[in-house]
Amino acid sequence: MYIGVDLGGTNIVAGVVDSTGKILAKEKCSTNHHRGARAVIEDIARLSKEVCASAKIPESEIEWIGIGAPGSIDRENGVVIYNNNLNFENVQVKAIIQETWPKMPVFLENDANAAAFGEVMAGSAKDYSSSLFVTLGTGVGGGIVFGSKILTGYNGGAGEIGHIVMVENGRPCTCGRKGCWEAYASATALIDFTKEAMEANKDSGMWKIAETLEAADGRTAFDAMRAGDKVGTEVVNKYIGHLACGLTSLVNILQPEVVCIGGGIAAEKETLLAPLREYVYREAYKCGDKRTSIITATLGNDAGVIGAAMLGIQK
Amino acid sequence: MYIGVDLGGTNIVAGVVDSTGKILAKEKCSTNHHRGARAVIEDIARLSKEVCASAKIPESEIEWIGIGAPGSIDRENGVVIYNNNLNFENVQVKAIIQETWPKMPVFLENDANAAAFGEVMAGSAKDYSSSLFVTLGTGVGGGIVFGSKILTGYNGGAGEIGHIVMVENGRPCTCGRKGCWEAYASATALIDFTKEAMEANKDSGMWKIAETLEAADGRTAFDAMRAGDKVGTEVVNKYIGHLACGLTSLVNILQPEVVCIGGGIAAEKETLLAPLREYVYREAYKCGDKRTSIITATLGNDAGVIGAAMLGIQK
Repeated sequence: MYIGVDLGGTNIVAGVVDSTGKILAKEKCSTNHHRGARAVIEDIARLSKEVCASAKIPESEIEWIGIGAPGSIDRENGVVIYNNNLNFENVQVKAIIQETWPKMPVFLENDANAAAFGEVMAGSAKDYSSSLFVTLGTGVGGGIVFGSKILTGYNGGAGEIGHIVMVENGRPCTCGRKGCWEAYASATALIDFTKEAMEANKDSGMWKIAETLEAADGRTAFDAMRAGDKVGTEVVNKYIGHLACGLTSLVNILQPEVVCIGGGIAAEKETLLAPLREYVYREAYKCGDKRTSIITATLGNDAGVIGAAMLGIQK
Repeated sequence: MYIGVDLGGTNIVAGVVDSTGKILAKEKCSTNHHRGARAVIEDIARLSKEVCASAKIPESEIEWIGIGAPGSIDRENGVVIYNNNLNFENVQVKAIIQETWPKMPVFLENDANAAAFGEVMAGSAKDYSSSLFVTLGTGVGGGIVFGSKILTGYNGGAGEIGHIVMVENGRPCTCGRKGCWEAYASATALIDFTKEAMEANKDSGMWKIAETLEAADGRTAFDAMRAGDKVGTEVVNKYIGHLACGLTSLVNILQPEVVCIGGGIAAEKETLLAPLREYVYREAYKCGDKRTSIITATLGNDAGVIGAAMLGIQK
């Protein structure tokens, strides 16, 4: 039995997970990071005890605790080097957990990588030899897994797939560069395109769906397209074009066996995936007949907990 | 002792290589692919015998023959699936070699990957844990090596790093896409930029160096910059900016310990590398203090022969 923890900006979720990746029990509390890093990590240790009780599993049966945390990670020492959102700097996660759980092995991983690993071990990518995860949310998150090993890179920061420039000197990105894929393919970008098109087209059917500009979200343009709206269709096509352009570049570099798309926009399923596949298969560099599968992630919010729990069996 | 073969569009080079990556003898002949694939591969088998004689090494001491060939490769069966330049389609390289060398293990790899592997085993990247090779030539070639294993991808075609779009709908690329990095960062692109600038600036010092538009090459703008020419300096800065933009994206994805730059333009050494490093270190995603080293490849044209010879010790 393992404990997996997903440390997010809003909530901490801890789960007891078995060796097949099944969650036996789950507990949650607010992150409330303004209390300081030590209090947050102590909550992880406490929540880990609570979830053992919920699952009716003795603590002695827990083999390790795995934690997915945002930011840059020192895996060897179990330290979050830096995270802007939580205001973490050199936080000794492993050492603080071991104050409550003496000698317990603690594995720490970047949260996007942990979620990708969860999908590989127990979700959408279970039967594939190499996988690329793309999460379409506020940004474009990523995780690259070869076999059952996460690509962390020399400095632990590999997999920042959102930060490849697709339009030199283009839209500003949160990372400081201009024209990153993230600035064109994230849910945030889709919402921006939607609002821009609504402002320029006061008679678009998107106004019937969102009513106000502020209410426009990642579904507005897709819903308008389904209702036959021309401008909504244009927004969707523009968005999918940008998404596909960056994804094709990643396929050319990595040629993974599968690409798993997650995040809110992945809920569009084949409305998103069918044109995405068509573009990537047309534009990607040809090499024999084998083509990268493009599918949706299946574990949703549980991916982080499951992946974190299974970090100890990484090969 | 191993035999390494570099099958190029113009020449075939075969070498006897020892376990340290030292070439003991080398033989060469014209590829002359218009004779058909079988004749070319039979020449590889013959040249392999000749180079054993030159090295005064009995054929019985050869453990395997490794071959780097352009195009898409079926490693398992030793087949070149397809190559446009040599007009190869499903060429049974291993089987044809074994007609002359019965039971000899034959390893086949893409030529860019083989050269990258040579630099890892015996050249510039010998002491690094993960490496990205970038060859600036007619195109932008690439090779990604983790530990002592080449990243080949699910379909064998990984590492096509030149074919990431950096300018959506930009300059046409040979691969069929528009705006690929290759169309901005190859030696071909530098020469195009040089000629465009010469035509637009009839008083540029580049005319003194190249004399005619046709004589302009990858050195012209760099030489003009060294002579104090403003337009030549602008061409160099524009080229390095494009090169650095794509390289930063690759570093964000892979975070390799080292990037090795090869090809003719790498002969500019620090004139190229110093501004390249400055850009990449400024723009790449930050993760702690560790930074990817950026250096020049050291084996030159021998990288392919050495890397091919050492394919059998890939882990």
